[in-house]
Order: sequence, then C-alpha cells, then structure tokens
Amino acid sequence: MGKIDFNQPHLTGRETKYILDAVSKKKISGNGYYTKLCQNFFESKYNFNKCLLTTSCTDALEMAAILINIQPGDEVIVPSYTFVSTANAFILRGAKIIFADSTNYNPNIDCEQIAALIGPKTKAIVVVHYAGISCDMEKIRELADKRNLYVIEDAAQAIDSFYSDLNGKKRPLGSIGHLAAFSFHETKNIISGEGGMLVINDLTFCDRAEIIWEKGTNRSSFFRGEVDKYGWVDIGSSFLPSELIAAFLYAQLEDLDTIQTKRKLIWQQYLSNLREWADYKNILLPILPDYATNNGHLFYIVHVSEAKRNGLINSLKAKGISSVFHYQSLHNSVYFKSTYTGVPLPNSEMYTERLLRLPLHFDLSTEDVDRVCQTIIESE
Amino acid sequence: MGKIDFNQPHLTGRETKYILDAVSKKKISGNGYYTKLCQNFFESKYNFNKCLLTTSCTDALEMAAILINIQPGDEVIVPSYTFVSTANAFILRGAKIIFADSTNYNPNIDCEQIAALIGPKTKAIVVVHYAGISCDMEKIRELADKRNLYVIEDAAQAIDSFYSDLNGKKRPLGSIGHLAAFSFHETKNIISGEGGMLVINDLTFCDRAEIIWEKGTNRSSFFRGEVDKYGWVDIGSSFLPSELIAAFLYAQLEDLDTIQTKRKLIWQQYLSNLREWADYKNILLPILPDYATNNGHLFYIVHVSEAKRNGLINSLKAKGISSVFHYQSLHNSVYFKSTYTGVPLPNSEMYTERLLRLPLHFDLSTEDVDRVCQTIIESE
Repeated sequence: MGKIDFNQPHLTGRETKYILDAVSKKKISGNGYYTKLCQNFFESKYNFNKCLLTTSCTDALEMAAILINIQPGDEVIVPSYTFVSTANAFILRGAKIIFADSTNYNPNIDCEQIAALIGPKTKAIVVVHYAGISCDMEKIRELADKRNLYVIEDAAQAIDSFYSDLNGKKRPLGSIGHLAAFSFHETKNIISGEGGMLVINDLTFCDRAEIIWEKGTNRSSFFRGEVDKYGWVDIGSSFLPSELIAAFLYAQLEDLDTIQTKRKLIWQQYLSNLREWADYKNILLPILPDYATNNGHLFYIVHVSEAKRNGLINSLKAKGISSVFHYQSLHNSVYFKSTYTGVPLPNSEMYTERLLRLPLHFDLSTEDVDRVCQTIIESE
Repeated sequence: MGKIDFNQPHLTGRETKYILDAVSKKKISGNGYYTKLCQNFFESKYNFNKCLLTTSCTDALEMAAILINIQPGDEVIVPSYTFVSTANAFILRGAKIIFADSTNYNPNIDCEQIAALIGPKTKAIVVVHYAGISCDMEKIRELADKRNLYVIEDAAQAIDSFYSDLNGKKRPLGSIGHLAAFSFHETKNIISGEGGMLVINDLTFCDRAEIIWEKGTNRSSFFRGEVDKYGWVDIGSSFLPSELIAAFLYAQLEDLDTIQTKRKLIWQQYLSNLREWADYKNILLPILPDYATNNGHLFYIVHVSEAKRNGLINSLKAKGISSVFHYQSLHNSVYFKSTYTGVPLPNSEMYTERLLRLPLHFDLSTEDVDRVCQTIIESE
C-alpha cells in the first residue's frame, strides 16, 4: 500500500504558464499585473476593503503591528496555541505579549477569559481562526470596542471561511478585525510556496499600509501620478512578493471553488467515518459553533492523552500514513517560559499534548481517507 | 528606431524548468533543494562562510540589524546616498541613523569623514558598494576594529565584484564585513524578481542567523536531528523565500559568468565611447580606485548641473531611450529632514541632483550602446 502524505502541494496546472506570462511582461518584481489580479480577486470575492500581497503571513502580521503603531511596552493579547509569528510580529515592535487560553471545545481563544487580561497598556487583541473555524467575533469586537482596542485576525488558515453574526449575516473571516493576515504557505488550501496577504478593513490604514509595504516610500502614489517623485516618508520593509509568486497564486485562486469543494468533502468524510469511534473513545473532533463554517483546511482529533496521541502517530506511521501534532504552547516555549507570569493555560497545553492532524490535501482519494480512518479505528 | 529600455530582466531559459522541477519535488516553501543549491553556489564560488537566501536585500539587512542586536538609541553610520532600506532596516530595531557623505569622486561613503561621526553609542558602519564598486574596505575595517564596531556591507549591487587588499589579495565584496546583504531584484545582474541573501562572515552569528531566518525557531537544528522537536527560541521573521524564487535564481546563477562578461563589455563600451566627450564637458564618469573592480552592474554619468542632467533625460527620452536618476539623499527626505542635525552632505546632494544611469542590461546590443552614446553626445 502506498504512503499517504500529511500534505501535498496541489497544482491547477496553470501556475508555470502564468509565471512565463509574468516573465514575458518583463516585470517580475513586486506590485505588478498578477499582484493586482490577486488583490482584486479577494477584494471582489470577499468584499475586503483593501488587500496587499506579502511575502508571508508573518510579514502581513508585521505590517499590522507597524500600522497600529505598537510602541515598546504596549500589550497585545495573543492565544498561546498558535504559530510563533502571531507573537513575534508584535514583539519585534516592542510589544509585551499577554497569552490567552484556548476554549475547551476548540483551540480558538477563549473569549470569556479575555476581559481579565485587558489592562491600561493593552493595544490589541489578535485572534487566530484555528483550522479555519471562526472565533466568536462579535464577542471579541464588543470587548475591543469598549476599550478602544484593535482586533487583528490571524486568518492564516481561514481562507473562504465565514462568521455568521447575530443578525444571521455571513461575513468572511478576515473582514471583521481592523486588519487581517492570510497565509499561502504550501500547507494551506491555496498556495504560493511562501506567501501571505494583509487585509485592511479599517480604511484609515490604507494609505500608510501602501507606504509601509513599499519600504517606507510613497512609490505607489508616484505611479498613480499623485506626487512627482517618490522618496522616504516612513518606516517600512520590502513586504511585497515577486510577480513570480503572485502569478503562481493567481492560478490557484482561479480554482478556489473546486479546491474548497474537494477539501470540504474530505473533511466531512473524516467527520462521518470517525464520529462514532470518537464518541465511544471520548476523543474530541472539531466542533463548529453555530456562528462558524468549516473551510476544509485541516481535520484534527484531540486524543485522551499525550501518550495515546503519540502512540497513534506511530501506529499510523507504521502503516505509511503521516499525521502530525501542531503548536507548542508559546507561553511554555524556551523563548518565553522564564518570563511568563500569567495564569496557567491548561487548554492550550491540552491541544499541544493531545491534538493530532490527519492527512488532508486535494489529491487525497476517498479510499485514502477511508484507509486513514480504518487504520485509526483498528489501532485503538 | 526601437525603444531602448533602461532595464530588462534577462532570462537564461531554464528558470521555469527549474520551477517545474521544484514543484515536482512537492516542496515549494522555503529552505529546500534549490535554496541549498543557491547558498552552496555562493559559499563555494566566493568562499563566503555561510549564506542564507532571503525574500529581499531589505530583509537581509533587517536580519543583520537583529543579529548585531541593535537596541533603541544605538547609532549606525549609513551613507545618505543609498536606498531607504539601508537605513530603515536599522531604524526598525530602534537605531538612530548617522548619515555620512559620499566621496567627491564616486557615491561610496567617504572614509575620511567617518571618524568624526563615531561616538560612544555607535554600533555599526554600513557601507554601500555603489554600482558594485568597492568602498575602501581596509580603511573602514580599521576604523571599525579600533572602536569595536560592526561593519555591514550593503552589497545589493555588488555581486561578483572585488576589493584588492594592501597585500594585493582580491577579496569578493560581501566577504569583508561581519555581515553582508545582496539583492536579486529584477534590476540587478542576477535576478529572481524580488530576492536577497545574507552572508555571515563572522561565524559567531551563524547559529542565531538560522534561527532568526526560520521565524525565531530552531527548525533547522530539528531537521538536522540536533533537537527532538522545534520551538520558539528567539525573535525572528519569515525571511526565507519560496523554492519558486530559489529555483528561478539558480537558473540565473548557472549563467553568472556569461552574464557578467556581457555586462562588463557594455560598461567598457560606454566608458570608451563617452570618455573624450565627458572630459571635454567636465562630466564625471565612474572612477575605479586601485583597490576596486567593476562588475558591470550600472553605468552612470555625473552631469555638471541638475538642469543639464534633467535636460539630458528628456533628450534621450525623445529618442526612445530610457535613462534614470537614482537616490534621493536620505538626510533630506520627508521622513528624516526635520530631525537631521548633522553637517551638510554636499556630495550626496550632488549625486542626487546630477547622477544619471544609462541603459544597461544583458540583451543590449553594441549598436544600442553606440546609439545611446551618440544621442548623448549630440544632445549636448
């Protein structure tokens, strides 16, 4: 029996054609034809106010930290169960990170605990829509608005997923915070190897975002004919990706609906196949709150113990199936542990110890998924 | 008569073949097969101690600023006649920039003036090898070593160029400072659209450089089997480019010698064609100090006045030839001007007003170069 990879980059077949086209346009540095196509795609499909492609989701988060003008000593509330960049992007600007716990039913930030973490120095709440499943955005916006805090969505995993507000209106993830960051890393639904995007929902950030993106210059204004030469007007970095990356990405975006349909079918198949077994074994499967949708980004189980989880990884591996754990809790990291003074974060630690991600990619067949599920059920 | 572009990205023809190959290896995120090929290429051809590809030269400079541990208030000496990123990379870490003037014979930093700019808070001197022509590196290292300062080479334009030391030993630019940053932006000799590389000559930075490059994690150690899981150990960012970029870059690097030979011929043709005219008109052409080589990156003239320079741009434009000025002096920028308290920097301002870059790219014919020169001579 063949191996089943945890992830495989999926190609639409047009990626290199568009790269060749970008090259033939004699413009392969950033902010060209394909960059604009990608940005327009998101602005029109999801009604995002303004989008800027970046070299990574990390870089989009760094842009957010600069835009909200983080100063040394400012506090930013971040879930502990996330990738290091969610915190590092703000630390690079001098922020103190206040780690929050996850809920006990999914790895998203526990809104009930946020209020206690807000202090006079708090500047922003960063939420991570884990597995593309929405955090409780109205609660978070309410908490933030009351205290005049920024909300940043780390939407790395959350492309094409939605939050239904109390009026039943479905809002795309990435459109609810003041700013949002997406990832197109090769492990995501839509990929460009490395890559990301900043979404600017709060229009007051638009002009400065463009400047920071272009290394702190007003080059974009210059090309629109608004100024007669461009120069240094702000801090900034080279956040914009090559057109090679944007061309690749655009080929992917054209197939977004096909990719999403397939991934969601795989996700549903896992859920149906494992439901009965999981309930019997007290194993947690992804829970979708009423307000959230699933985007087929990742399927996980939360086992009953770390030992059982690790045992299952090995059993699957023995059968040629690759499954992987996820984040190390950041408050317990080598970098942060000695300075962490907050309360225990037991749910974050639980997901660190017990969460397991199963293979999920476009080229997985229904037989593959059945085989993974069967192997899991037989291993236990 | 056809148009003559200032720059055109040159292709070797293998770029998309290698991109397809990277894709077929199912690994298009960073730090894969082609990234290693590129890094090895530089390490073996130029004997650089350690190289790390980055998403831009800007990002390589930002890594340098993190590695030398810039703290708020530290001072960094930077030429005013350079791209914004040479300064911004250090400002992002809290540095105060002390701007230095250029020499009166080329835009490189004037070593005679550096000593007066060094104070108790100075941490580093950043040199820019303008047009790929070396700064006076022994003088700079001597000044720096005496005061225990770091030397960072902004070698954005300086691929395959050399400095001859007092013993007559030719040392590649990028190998002399503690750290160096290269660019592969589409305007450079070797391109990947956007792209860059950090060179780590001071071995004490190697381990940390790898960590900062991988978002502040010890992922590289993990893949070498040195630790059993990887986690957050430092600040960092997503500095590493996609394999798509590295694959494209490698195709270029394989043709480095061919590209360099052609570009240097064009450069020499400009020099011979314009020598007599320039001397007669008191127009400055590039001057190569005894210790420096030319790498065919860019050919410039320094006209007698801003009005004459701008007039020449227009005359050339009328004949379908694109020529462009270069940097705005950073100490005079919108961002910096109001806080600049240093001495006047007349040479930097002179190059801002009077320097003009002529078309130079691989696909330029000798007839094209003759036509540019003839048009210049006839315009005056």
